[in-house]
Amino acid sequence: MSQAMSKAPPRGESYLIRKYFQRAEAATVRLGIGDDAAIIDCDGARLVVSADTMVEGSHFFKGDAASDIGYKALATAASDLAAMGTQPQWALLCLSLPSNDENWVKGFAEGFFEMAGPYAIALIGGDMTRGPLSCSVQVMGTTSETCMRRDAALSGHGIYLTGHIAMAGFANQHAQALAQQDPKLLEQCTARYKRPEPRITESQIIAQYAPCAIDISDGVLMDLSRILEASDKGAEVALDQMPFAAGFERYCPDSDTILKVLSHGEDYELLFTMDDAHYPALQKAWGNNPLPLTRIGTITEQPDMRCTYKNQAVELPELLGYDHFASP
Amino acid sequence: MSQAMSKAPPRGESYLIRKYFQRAEAATVRLGIGDDAAIIDCDGARLVVSADTMVEGSHFFKGDAASDIGYKALATAASDLAAMGTQPQWALLCLSLPSNDENWVKGFAEGFFEMAGPYAIALIGGDMTRGPLSCSVQVMGTTSETCMRRDAALSGHGIYLTGHIAMAGFANQHAQALAQQDPKLLEQCTARYKRPEPRITESQIIAQYAPCAIDISDGVLMDLSRILEASDKGAEVALDQMPFAAGFERYCPDSDTILKVLSHGEDYELLFTMDDAHYPALQKAWGNNPLPLTRIGTITEQPDMRCTYKNQAVELPELLGYDHFASP
Repeated sequence: MSQAMSKAPPRGESYLIRKYFQRAEAATVRLGIGDDAAIIDCDGARLVVSADTMVEGSHFFKGDAASDIGYKALATAASDLAAMGTQPQWALLCLSLPSNDENWVKGFAEGFFEMAGPYAIALIGGDMTRGPLSCSVQVMGTTSETCMRRDAALSGHGIYLTGHIAMAGFANQHAQALAQQDPKLLEQCTARYKRPEPRITESQIIAQYAPCAIDISDGVLMDLSRILEASDKGAEVALDQMPFAAGFERYCPDSDTILKVLSHGEDYELLFTMDDAHYPALQKAWGNNPLPLTRIGTITEQPDMRCTYKNQAVELPELLGYDHFASP
Repeated sequence: MSQAMSKAPPRGESYLIRKYFQRAEAATVRLGIGDDAAIIDCDGARLVVSADTMVEGSHFFKGDAASDIGYKALATAASDLAAMGTQPQWALLCLSLPSNDENWVKGFAEGFFEMAGPYAIALIGGDMTRGPLSCSVQVMGTTSETCMRRDAALSGHGIYLTGHIAMAGFANQHAQALAQQDPKLLEQCTARYKRPEPRITESQIIAQYAPCAIDISDGVLMDLSRILEASDKGAEVALDQMPFAAGFERYCPDSDTILKVLSHGEDYELLFTMDDAHYPALQKAWGNNPLPLTRIGTITEQPDMRCTYKNQAVELPELLGYDHFASP
């Protein structure tokens, strides 16, 4: 694989999952471990399933409002189905709580259902236990179409992003400067960290044109590298084409600051690869949705990732994004 | 409800789940929150789904072998599908780990697949994050038959148990005495705590005769009270009919010690209610399975739980079994 990718920490979660949990698959399993969601054949139906965990200290902080944590727990899980182009229909929630603080539970449930409501996601079960604060949400949806997959990128296809990228990263890395110079922008960025918006509706349009997608949870370049690895392809990416929200330019004067802010993750935008010939049709189907669609690069046959900034090659850092077990 | 049941702690997990998470259900949801598993209509297929969390300190201890924790994580989740009479076919695993200790992960995976193998349960996805040690396992299976449900108990039906009860409770409460007097028995009991055996195969036979079942995770009487509440029925239970393994009599000389050991839970045996007229047919279908089937009482129309010990009425304690949020 590419130099950048081979530099990934040898004992990260992907390594452990692949080595110990990926086994020969049953005939009913169309897509198993290794994508955003699994696809199973289920007595004639085709079911797309995913599960996501949030832990205090990693995905949210002690002071965060319970309602935001509840919202985010479902949003991040639903985002994995969006990466497949699938509408989440059902969810299970496993909640581990240090105490039976009723107000906290009430707030969490309110946030959870604020996210579930507009998409008619039914909470059908789960578990509640006493323990350190964390939650796992499992989401499911049926599909009759071919799903977008990580292993379906093709050489020459364009690499696209929905929305504005790295807003949570900005909130995290530039909080002080933003608070002084642009408190409104900080507020927008913080909102995106607290209540990410999975691209559920958009993904079902994208899936009609793009064979390959991932949701950006751990950083654009790290998540792109997962597509490249699964598809055995490479990419050329223009860092100066990244779709930052207006007002961010002054905080990103060079490729180093861009790489740093991109590595934060928690965007929950979609990265997809598509034959550029489909772009006009996609744009038409997009209608008057104000969410931008941005081309940031091209898939290449040569399996490495090359980044440029204003047409100059940029050396990639050792770690492209967030890895739970990379830092000590 | 019954006196015993109304004494349950007002802020336990069942209360919180019902009050904040149980909402109006979608048309596709045949059975939602409140049973061992949910049942959904899924493009023509009928899917049974459940999720279970294990947290260090509650469900296992710091020193427990990783392979036992992996085994138990899947076994306890699978037991919830057994309670419905459904064969688990697919699982997702969300694992939260304090560090990337590869040996631990290896051991956990070995135990997990030792449980998955004989039942051909496919691990299809999940998540791995850094955090306090805990795991949530979600299991799914399809069904074409009517599932056993908690709300289907009928007056006059017998209350039955599979296997020997309270072995984990004995290991927990009588460890010292057993270590001195009967180390072999202690070993058997400890094995049941570490590697519970969900009654997957048996449950599919039972489901042909019994409309109502639950798996015993929090204590026979507490889990029975859940059936009674869901079915709006009562029960008469003979504590002296509890199926203890041979050698336990001397540790349970009276109703108080029996009630105490029953309240521990972690049996993962099935409690089911059935028209006694079906017993001969069930026994025949049971074949030469050495697992005992024991009748411990009768469902009554009057919605309270009455227990006897050698034909004497027994007063029930405030808390019938394990509740995560009952103790401080």
